[in-house]
Amino acid sequence: MRASVLLEAETLELQERAVPVPDPDQVLIRIEAVGVCGSDVHFFHEGKLGDWEVTEPLVLGHESAGVIVAVGSAVDPARIGERVSIEPQRPDPTSRESLSGAYNLCPNMEFYAVPGVDGAFAQYATIQSHFAHRIPDHVSLEAAALLEPLSVAIATARKAGFTAGSRVLITGAGPIGIVTAQVARAYGASEIIVTDVDPQRRAQAERFGATRTIDALTEPVGNLGLDVDAFVDASGAPAAVRSGFGEVRPGGTVVLVGMGPTEIPLPVSTIQNRELVVTGIFRYNNTWPLAIELVASGRVDLDALVTGRFGLDRVADALNSTRDPQTLKSVVTPNA
Amino acid sequence: MRASVLLEAETLELQERAVPVPDPDQVLIRIEAVGVCGSDVHFFHEGKLGDWEVTEPLVLGHESAGVIVAVGSAVDPARIGERVSIEPQRPDPTSRESLSGAYNLCPNMEFYAVPGVDGAFAQYATIQSHFAHRIPDHVSLEAAALLEPLSVAIATARKAGFTAGSRVLITGAGPIGIVTAQVARAYGASEIIVTDVDPQRRAQAERFGATRTIDALTEPVGNLGLDVDAFVDASGAPAAVRSGFGEVRPGGTVVLVGMGPTEIPLPVSTIQNRELVVTGIFRYNNTWPLAIELVASGRVDLDALVTGRFGLDRVADALNSTRDPQTLKSVVTPNA
Amino acid sequence: MRASVLLEAETLELQERAVPVPDPDQVLIRIEAVGVCGSDVHFFHEGKLGDWEVTEPLVLGHESAGVIVAVGSAVDPARIGERVSIEPQRPDPTSRESLSGAYNLCPNMEFYAVPGVDGAFAQYATIQSHFAHRIPDHVSLEAAALLEPLSVAIATARKAGFTAGSRVLITGAGPIGIVTAQVARAYGASEIIVTDVDPQRRAQAERFGATRTIDALTEPVGNLGLDVDAFVDASGAPAAVRSGFGEVRPGGTVVLVGMGPTEIPLPVSTIQNRELVVTGIFRYNNTWPLAIELVASGRVDLDALVTGRFGLDRVADALNSTRDPQTLKSVVTPNA
Amino acid sequence: MRASVLLEAETLELQERAVPVPDPDQVLIRIEAVGVCGSDVHFFHEGKLGDWEVTEPLVLGHESAGVIVAVGSAVDPARIGERVSIEPQRPDPTSRESLSGAYNLCPNMEFYAVPGVDGAFAQYATIQSHFAHRIPDHVSLEAAALLEPLSVAIATARKAGFTAGSRVLITGAGPIGIVTAQVARAYGASEIIVTDVDPQRRAQAERFGATRTIDALTEPVGNLGLDVDAFVDASGAPAAVRSGFGEVRPGGTVVLVGMGPTEIPLPVSTIQNRELVVTGIFRYNNTWPLAIELVASGRVDLDALVTGRFGLDRVADALNSTRDPQTLKSVVTPNA
Repeated sequence: MRASVLLEAETLELQERAVPVPDPDQVLIRIEAVGVCGSDVHFFHEGKLGDWEVTEPLVLGHESAGVIVAVGSAVDPARIGERVSIEPQRPDPTSRESLSGAYNLCPNMEFYAVPGVDGAFAQYATIQSHFAHRIPDHVSLEAAALLEPLSVAIATARKAGFTAGSRVLITGAGPIGIVTAQVARAYGASEIIVTDVDPQRRAQAERFGATRTIDALTEPVGNLGLDVDAFVDASGAPAAVRSGFGEVRPGGTVVLVGMGPTEIPLPVSTIQNRELVVTGIFRYNNTWPLAIELVASGRVDLDALVTGRFGLDRVADALNSTRDPQTLKSVVTPNA
Repeated sequence: MRASVLLEAETLELQERAVPVPDPDQVLIRIEAVGVCGSDVHFFHEGKLGDWEVTEPLVLGHESAGVIVAVGSAVDPARIGERVSIEPQRPDPTSRESLSGAYNLCPNMEFYAVPGVDGAFAQYATIQSHFAHRIPDHVSLEAAALLEPLSVAIATARKAGFTAGSRVLITGAGPIGIVTAQVARAYGASEIIVTDVDPQRRAQAERFGATRTIDALTEPVGNLGLDVDAFVDASGAPAAVRSGFGEVRPGGTVVLVGMGPTEIPLPVSTIQNRELVVTGIFRYNNTWPLAIELVASGRVDLDALVTGRFGLDRVADALNSTRDPQTLKSVVTPNA
Repeated sequence: MRASVLLEAETLELQERAVPVPDPDQVLIRIEAVGVCGSDVHFFHEGKLGDWEVTEPLVLGHESAGVIVAVGSAVDPARIGERVSIEPQRPDPTSRESLSGAYNLCPNMEFYAVPGVDGAFAQYATIQSHFAHRIPDHVSLEAAALLEPLSVAIATARKAGFTAGSRVLITGAGPIGIVTAQVARAYGASEIIVTDVDPQRRAQAERFGATRTIDALTEPVGNLGLDVDAFVDASGAPAAVRSGFGEVRPGGTVVLVGMGPTEIPLPVSTIQNRELVVTGIFRYNNTWPLAIELVASGRVDLDALVTGRFGLDRVADALNSTRDPQTLKSVVTPNA
Repeated sequence: MRASVLLEAETLELQERAVPVPDPDQVLIRIEAVGVCGSDVHFFHEGKLGDWEVTEPLVLGHESAGVIVAVGSAVDPARIGERVSIEPQRPDPTSRESLSGAYNLCPNMEFYAVPGVDGAFAQYATIQSHFAHRIPDHVSLEAAALLEPLSVAIATARKAGFTAGSRVLITGAGPIGIVTAQVARAYGASEIIVTDVDPQRRAQAERFGATRTIDALTEPVGNLGLDVDAFVDASGAPAAVRSGFGEVRPGGTVVLVGMGPTEIPLPVSTIQNRELVVTGIFRYNNTWPLAIELVASGRVDLDALVTGRFGLDRVADALNSTRDPQTLKSVVTPNA
């Protein structure tokens, strides 16, 4: 099969590789769509992300979907032919974290496209059977791939406590911000305020559920008195992160989703005086069933996020496309 | 009556004032013991604390207890003579926060010894009847005064999720750190690790419940692999705050109690990667019944915290005494 | 003013009474719409309900709205003229329950239309100012009155844990069942299954949000394998209550809302084997802001529930109208 | 090896069987101590329990501990020789329930001594490696076996919300009631009230943590005004279950642990009027680490519960011993 392999920062190579053989509890999937994520872009340009560093050739891509073409010995062969979305993680089911339901925090995790584990910018990939989630016929494979960022937004919603009537502030109208806005609406939020400095992105946010958008350059976020129940940073920008705290009601929540500097000055006295609950998310657990439901029922629209498609030989273009603010989500189609 | 009044930073005056008259729902209390809190010390030396500034004469002191000597028209006169601990706040019961149980976050709060509301460094003070909490005969009035910092520790325990078997890290072995250690033990915590740079304070921590103490100067907190369930900062020192995050297990909690700079650089990537839940506390709500129970049953020892007693004419000495690391808790006795 | 007074079971009298005078913290409201609730019907026919017994003349009616016409001395006179929905309770703000946010459980509660406290089948009534909730201009006063049963449904949703993707079973398609179905939809529930033996009521349920209806007479509820996250009984019928438990997934919730016999045989082994969480609701707390939001935004339609209107001289007719399955909600209009 | 096999109700046979061979992820344990549980007694006398029926020969016993003597191919051989407590369950790690942390509710569970899966009244047994929990040297193997009922009590404590200051009512002073009382104390409960009709059992309860005992025959439980935060039924007796509800404060919890009739009339109006949260437990998850900690630290005493020891040839005697109220916990020692 063909795979797009990152050799080092800025260097991708289209290689011919053996099709992987599924373990007994795995399925083999012909990959049809792979979304490009900001972490892929970081690895591509910098060869590293946080504590991870690319020291061996690595296949990127972890927002993926396709069709099951083979199964391991312990998997029902009837699954062959199923259209599936891939939950791209393999936790150790015996770890303390997995046993308590937080398998995303498992210290022995193997995750797609993190140094040591190849991802999905390839024609085929394997995953444990129960993490190959069947999708309804009317859900596209592109949408199926994007259930992954939708899962990030669902994990965010749970941490943030989105519920009917919530007032939500989201800083950053990139793909995660936009999907989070859609999810907030699906959870019944009443006010969904999205900030971004780019007018096109703000326009997109309004199209996907924002009830109000703010240009953070011209409006002083932090002192607007928004009194939101939850603030979600989807930008990773320190200025956005810090400004958002000032808009949260006493007892409200802050969820830091965007990846930025390792350390950011945070307004500790505001956290204290308002007893804000601040947390972050690290991927997701138990999100796919809801993600499928939200897309299948039309409450979240992922297809409309796709602004570009690229073959396996154009992964670099796909990765570079994210620099264009017109790009919302680029998709690689390894078998197109 | 006599009251010790802060006129401006560093300037206290013993004044003769009219005994306050209780509102219909209040009681009048002859104050017998008032603990000195760090916030009193801040107001005394700097004339301000956070956003508050002393612009009018102010009576400090909010850790207080005494005897009811008069009651308002709507209060049962049988309360006269009761020995009580004062919960020194007066929230608006109709605010959103009060109605939902977080009355400590009420925006219309009147709180002892905050500019605008006189505190308890005086011979008499008033409080709403239901916030004058009766104490058992065998609980001393000094301990009754210190139910206030104990309430801070209880509020912390609730936010931190202390429970049987908890592993807890506490940075700072001042009064709040020490009381929090005692409370952790009362909640059934298994490991109670306290850090402080001062050996005397570490020794005190061990006396009051710490199962291990660490000299942060010589042991690299942040990389010890403590894997605690909860980290409580009781120091306010940025270095301590930041170091503690590294010791928390995935999914663990961080409660910032110590008052330090308005803004502190926090390790956002650790918060994200471990999905830590970070919060702070702002005083307390609904803590007195448990506080009384813990002291009355002997599970928390507050009397042993008292290291000095001062008359109303020596409030400045009481406030200055906190500079001495030998001092754990100084108490003012307005009617001694 | 005129008031419809229950003298004893089945005996209503239209009396001339003095207009009540608001306490300092109250407002006086000209009542324009009052929904008829099942509890009113119980008091009317039986002279009692649960432990309550009508021993003195009692004005029924607690789902009410109107216009503020006078205010107590401590209330801003600018409120005069406001269109408001009445939260018909007066808890003691100093009780343990009120202080912790569960003011509906306050043991010293005064509640409209419960023996000892007159309700709203009258031309005027008083309520504490903060429980006279202002409604937007485009919300009708009938809808404003029905924010009360909507509050019951919101309290139910919170206890049941309704959230995006929830699968919900509701037994009983009376007013509470129907409003709960609407609320479930507003919370993002995916499946809303409503049972009722009456085909007209099932048809109404489908109109108001049910994704499926079941005739409990012909389909064996309890063994359908519905695997719901939450089961809400809105019937009070023992057969319905018991059958629902069998349809709940492991770890799911059961909320008993309908009022039926004091004691009902419940499947304890199912509660144990599936670790179901079973609870009931007693009125509501902190629901009006969300209720107003849900109606103002059109997500819940209360106006469409009204199937009959009755003057103050026809309260008995209004109470009797509930026997007709065509009746969904009858409204009394004291000043029409 | 020898195993005590239940052929049908009342008929046990000591059989010679092949020592089981551990799966790759399992360990083989030489069983040194097995507690007798009420469910063993039910199976012995009646050949069934709830929906389970003994149709094939079955080895009973699931409260067990011993020494690892062999390991599967995927397990570190260094574990051989470890003294371990057995968590006697084998959930499917890919089920919805396991993935969300409630692996005890996994529908594909294999559990010791339930028809289809042999238990531990045998010289050897296998378990997955991570469910063979190492115990400290100073914890006896009998105590290690009894970590299983301790786990039931811990699961109860979590559902009931035991915390510092809790007031707890426990009906039934059998082994589970007694261990629950000890656990309540370890969680910091202030009042631990235990009811039993047998004076010896009440005396034992007082020895193990009860702060008050009640003879339910002479004191009218249900109307004592105990105002407890949590009521735990450890009897399964309908009269005890029903009486307890009346003693719970508004908003309190009820956990039904005792196994009795499939269906019990419960006071629904009390559940509603006080918004009680009622649940049951089905075994446990993630309890062993805390159980070990509580025993190792001396906060829970399991050794003192053992009132009789029986060889593998005397399992029937062990099972019958539970009829004697002097018996608290009988232990089978397969290799003594």
